Amino acid sequence: MQRLRRLRQLGLAYLAFPSAEHSRFSHALGALAMGTRAFDALVRHGRRFFADDAGVAYQRRLLRAALLLHDVGHGPFSHGCEAVLGVRHERRSVEILALPDLRRAMDALEVDADDVLGLIVGDPQSRYPALRELVSGPNLDADRMDYLQRDAYFTGVATGRYDAEQLVASLRLIERAGGPAVGIDRRGVVALESFVMARYMMFASVYFHHTTRMFEHVLHQVLHEIWPDPRALDSVGEFLNWDDFRVLDTLDDERSEAAAALRNRIRVFALAAEFNAERDLRAFEACEAALRDRFGADRIWSDEQSQLLHRLPFGAGEEQTVWVEGPAGVVDARDASDLIGKLSGKAYWRKLFVRRADVDVAEARRICAEIVRG
Amino acid sequence: MQRLRRLRQLGLAYLAFPSAEHSRFSHALGALAMGTRAFDALVRHGRRFFADDAGVAYQRRLLRAALLLHDVGHGPFSHGCEAVLGVRHERRSVEILALPDLRRAMDALEVDADDVLGLIVGDPQSRYPALRELVSGPNLDADRMDYLQRDAYFTGVATGRYDAEQLVASLRLIERAGGPAVGIDRRGVVALESFVMARYMMFASVYFHHTTRMFEHVLHQVLHEIWPDPRALDSVGEFLNWDDFRVLDTLDDERSEAAAALRNRIRVFALAAEFNAERDLRAFEACEAALRDRFGADRIWSDEQSQLLHRLPFGAGEEQTVWVEGPAGVVDARDASDLIGKLSGKAYWRKLFVRRADVDVAEARRICAEIVRG
Amino acid sequence: MQRLRRLRQLGLAYLAFPSAEHSRFSHALGALAMGTRAFDALVRHGRRFFADDAGVAYQRRLLRAALLLHDVGHGPFSHGCEAVLGVRHERRSVEILALPDLRRAMDALEVDADDVLGLIVGDPQSRYPALRELVSGPNLDADRMDYLQRDAYFTGVATGRYDAEQLVASLRLIERAGGPAVGIDRRGVVALESFVMARYMMFASVYFHHTTRMFEHVLHQVLHEIWPDPRALDSVGEFLNWDDFRVLDTLDDERSEAAAALRNRIRVFALAAEFNAERDLRAFEACEAALRDRFGADRIWSDEQSQLLHRLPFGAGEEQTVWVEGPAGVVDARDASDLIGKLSGKAYWRKLFVRRADVDVAEARRICAEIVRG
Amino acid sequence: MQRLRRLRQLGLAYLAFPSAEHSRFSHALGALAMGTRAFDALVRHGRRFFADDAGVAYQRRLLRAALLLHDVGHGPFSHGCEAVLGVRHERRSVEILALPDLRRAMDALEVDADDVLGLIVGDPQSRYPALRELVSGPNLDADRMDYLQRDAYFTGVATGRYDAEQLVASLRLIERAGGPAVGIDRRGVVALESFVMARYMMFASVYFHHTTRMFEHVLHQVLHEIWPDPRALDSVGEFLNWDDFRVLDTLDDERSEAAAALRNRIRVFALAAEFNAERDLRAFEACEAALRDRFGADRIWSDEQSQLLHRLPFGAGEEQTVWVEGPAGVVDARDASDLIGKLSGKAYWRKLFVRRADVDVAEARRICAEIVRG
Repeated sequence: MQRLRRLRQLGLAYLAFPSAEHSRFSHALGALAMGTRAFDALVRHGRRFFADDAGVAYQRRLLRAALLLHDVGHGPFSHGCEAVLGVRHERRSVEILALPDLRRAMDALEVDADDVLGLIVGDPQSRYPALRELVSGPNLDADRMDYLQRDAYFTGVATGRYDAEQLVASLRLIERAGGPAVGIDRRGVVALESFVMARYMMFASVYFHHTTRMFEHVLHQVLHEIWPDPRALDSVGEFLNWDDFRVLDTLDDERSEAAAALRNRIRVFALAAEFNAERDLRAFEACEAALRDRFGADRIWSDEQSQLLHRLPFGAGEEQTVWVEGPAGVVDARDASDLIGKLSGKAYWRKLFVRRADVDVAEARRICAEIVRG
Repeated sequence: MQRLRRLRQLGLAYLAFPSAEHSRFSHALGALAMGTRAFDALVRHGRRFFADDAGVAYQRRLLRAALLLHDVGHGPFSHGCEAVLGVRHERRSVEILALPDLRRAMDALEVDADDVLGLIVGDPQSRYPALRELVSGPNLDADRMDYLQRDAYFTGVATGRYDAEQLVASLRLIERAGGPAVGIDRRGVVALESFVMARYMMFASVYFHHTTRMFEHVLHQVLHEIWPDPRALDSVGEFLNWDDFRVLDTLDDERSEAAAALRNRIRVFALAAEFNAERDLRAFEACEAALRDRFGADRIWSDEQSQLLHRLPFGAGEEQTVWVEGPAGVVDARDASDLIGKLSGKAYWRKLFVRRADVDVAEARRICAEIVRG
Repeated sequence: MQRLRRLRQLGLAYLAFPSAEHSRFSHALGALAMGTRAFDALVRHGRRFFADDAGVAYQRRLLRAALLLHDVGHGPFSHGCEAVLGVRHERRSVEILALPDLRRAMDALEVDADDVLGLIVGDPQSRYPALRELVSGPNLDADRMDYLQRDAYFTGVATGRYDAEQLVASLRLIERAGGPAVGIDRRGVVALESFVMARYMMFASVYFHHTTRMFEHVLHQVLHEIWPDPRALDSVGEFLNWDDFRVLDTLDDERSEAAAALRNRIRVFALAAEFNAERDLRAFEACEAALRDRFGADRIWSDEQSQLLHRLPFGAGEEQTVWVEGPAGVVDARDASDLIGKLSGKAYWRKLFVRRADVDVAEARRICAEIVRG
Repeated sequence: MQRLRRLRQLGLAYLAFPSAEHSRFSHALGALAMGTRAFDALVRHGRRFFADDAGVAYQRRLLRAALLLHDVGHGPFSHGCEAVLGVRHERRSVEILALPDLRRAMDALEVDADDVLGLIVGDPQSRYPALRELVSGPNLDADRMDYLQRDAYFTGVATGRYDAEQLVASLRLIERAGGPAVGIDRRGVVALESFVMARYMMFASVYFHHTTRMFEHVLHQVLHEIWPDPRALDSVGEFLNWDDFRVLDTLDDERSEAAAALRNRIRVFALAAEFNAERDLRAFEACEAALRDRFGADRIWSDEQSQLLHRLPFGAGEEQTVWVEGPAGVVDARDASDLIGKLSGKAYWRKLFVRRADVDVAEARRICAEIVRG
């Protein structure tokens, strides 16, 4: 657990937002607190979904343990580490939760280790589907409820705040085909709207910020240099020896351009153009082709939102929605709220970067501007 | 001016949000402060739009005077008073600004009274089109910039906050066909998105709140009782004797049901159903007809957003937009931002109320719920 | 109750802090909410002080009713009204709570009206001494806990905030000679310090602000003009017809200088000097004498803190303290905290005003400055 | 500079306040911003203290450079590193600012490197005494103004906030014997009070928090283990290779109890008693003696505030005060404010810890409690 103090919640975002230095450790405590309040609200309004008081007490302990531990599988810089080593953090979680120390800790908390694991990895067979949603669901999970407001606080992005108190108070267990699902009461729709908008604003302002994304791109190269063998950290013991700080400390000894860029915040790439709407897709493709022709493919980097899909407001499929309980029955949040309907669905975010050392940035921007103007 | 201390900025909204008791007076001070910061940002980035320092200084004084005075034409409960007496607050402004006291005050501030008036009433011939936008424009006016964040603060609706500091810092004078217009720099698009969303959230949570709207409906009847002759306040002297407090104080002596309801917060109507999206229009009409058939037209009240259009995010026409200046030239904010594009356009908000004294509220809700479920 | 919407919590302070327009009504709701949280904390840690669950439930209802109603005895401008009419708001409470309407309301809440009254007027014989402290005690009452943070919010005085959440969580029932008293746990001492400092800061910044105090002085004259007969409002029915708004509305018809000053915020007096410490007392007296000699006694007004003693941090007597429970037993907060020890005790706040119309303000200030310099 | 991103502003305080993970880097940016606002306020009200516009512009650049660089001399865990290696961070600053890279950076900013150094190390001969106060003065320095509110924000200690905006707006250059000094205008006394109280609250809640202090004690042992030779980092090149993260990363390889405690947050000591007031000194000494007798001197640790004096509200000497400019001339803030007078002066904070592994903590606490009770 204490290793999470050495993993930053937002990875390299502190290179764009200097105060975004908060760790996964503080996030784990926050998710635990948020999830407890959510659970208590579900019980207050849906006592009938629980067999008895002992069942309520067990599920509460289980949820808290799972939220505390939900990020133990993350390595240094999380998704960067996953991409380079090819091991998803959920698989790491399985191995780490099997360690004797953690087994003992879960015993002490009087929770079943397999139950905890089922919630963390999102096991479709979990006996506790509502808890699973609170831990690893796509929308109303305590993980996201905490990190959104935490990231907004530590970056200082005021528009990332949402009405967490009202949202939590509106949570309800709702009878669905596959068992109870986590939804909201009709009077919570405005709070849900604020939540969806906060996701949108944080995505636009922070998660997909061009400076952050550029350094994440540089990081990949650095991690390849540190671990030329992708199997280097396959052993869980070796894996646990690593954290963000050790990576940054290791860089010192490496002498690559990428390492120096990361350690000294040298901006290797410059933003040439960005695109946000579906109608921009054609312009994006034209710009990308033009820059490639002019400067060469290896001096260009096209970024899109696909790796960050989990951070976007919710998607198009039915399983991606939030159910709303009202006097007229249970409805899809995208029908209950015009706003949510408009904000959901596919995303079309693209950014085009050029290498500063080799490219005339002003020229690259001019090329794109002319294409956009038509 | 001091009379504005006795006009509440949000009229009857305090019956839904008990702490929303702030006055038009504090709003006028806030609009003045916000407008001054906006003006200073425009000058900092667009000094070329001003002839000389004296011109800058005069326009600054003029803008501050106009913002301080922009609401002097409002009577008790503002739109309620306008509706019953049939005189728009802009016309009142003309008369009040012509009073000797105010003439003297404007002389003392070294501003031309007609220039001030031109900004307040939104005169299309005003020599200062950019200032006119800051005072009475449809989007980036200091009036709205202040009241949105003020109303959010005093109602406690956290989601109504937006990034005012960033928005103001992004303001730019932009060359348009009809002279300089107030627009924003491309880097301010996220702040503008937060502003548009705050408008949406405040509309949904506060301005169109069912309790507020219901009491505004009751207020109309009360005002008709107080002023059976719509010309009663035609004289500006008589008009200025009235404020919210006198209306509420006068109620005491009236003995109608409406007066008692307003004074003692008796909820005469109950919400039977509400509708927010275009696709709901048909359901709304069916519900309205069904309730009318069942309970009688005089026991029903249909509310729609039409009287509140000025509070909605921006509309469909070109003159309703915000211009964004970027490397690729000047573009419409609805093109620069996918989010703003989605939130703009027509609104379809409807609420159906029934009279509590004569109608079985549960039955009315059931009738609507069945129609909505189809 | 709804009349409290027309009594401002801070009386005339809005003439110094334009946004301080909040009512006693919103304060009553806030005190109820704060008291409920305080009560729940007391029960959580001191269940042994209560006979049974029914007792807990009754006392909770009782406390909530008393906090909701604790200010019903206030008239327009509260202390101003008391001073002019010579009737304390506690006596009014007795009469108002005896009205049939309120009796019925308390019956409906299943609380005994005499129990409620005992808490509100601070009856030393009350069967519920801990609740009495929460309603009308000198330090840890929910009344004060709410109004301090409410007044800080609505005036915008950031330094008036304190750590309410931590203070409430630290509340404990403590065994004392006269029965259980409301005290705090040792770990809450820092929160209590923040509370004492907030009282100090709000006193210095808001309650004893020279502009507010000056207009309160003017108000006394106005109330004498409105009610030349101090017995005018002796009848509870007549009393209940009055509120802040009616007083301000009535002023219109009066034509005195004082009425005009209040209605149009004309500053009749100017501050010549102020004094805060014990060692200043001699200088204060010398200044007062010098101004009186020079300008005449009727052109001077000396203000001191005596009428506002209830707003100061706690005093010198033992019954004025807060008890702190720790591992070494129960101690006086003034011993547990060096800071609280230093801030408690006598206050020596004085302000000297002169009448603007008749006095050269600069000269008056010069006279005082010379005396202060010695 | 970028190394400061790897030094935490509050060292080990994150072990008590999980979110206190902010770096000296973000603090340096904040101090620069705060100092710029302070400087602009000084110029606005004291233009006569500056020879010409070029002088104002130079001093502004100089101040900004000095604030940005004021912490470059800090090593890992700052005061811990100083204590173990015996080199003050000011001496490090001299060496680091002499490095070619930094010389070039200062040249690029058009500031004289010796002028910068004079401000950072607090050279009594500096040609810019007012700037020196803003950088390294004992009270109104931008360093402290930033870190107080930053530490309050990142720990979440609400009572550590003060009215920074008002304090900065009140800053004035005041003519003193040794040249212009930084003081405040009389109307800023309430803001200064809030600043002094914030220092007090942050000291009590954060800087002298028992958990933080205990881990800082453990850290000393760890640093001795890492650098058995105190001259190990005498070379500036070697020194710059170290940061908080490297120390924590190095711990891994060490196998001492202290290293394990720090890395895994094992609380080696428990708090037995604490003392805050002068009158407690005798009890403190008696408790310390009793614990030593009972458990042995090496199982006890007595902490006092002496190493943290720079964080306490201001002291007893004249040079430690803040000057206040008012109508009656310039006075000492301790005379202008009763509150500041009370909070200034000597501090008597003491804490007694016992080693958990060897001592019965409950017994130790009982021993102290009995002595305190007398």
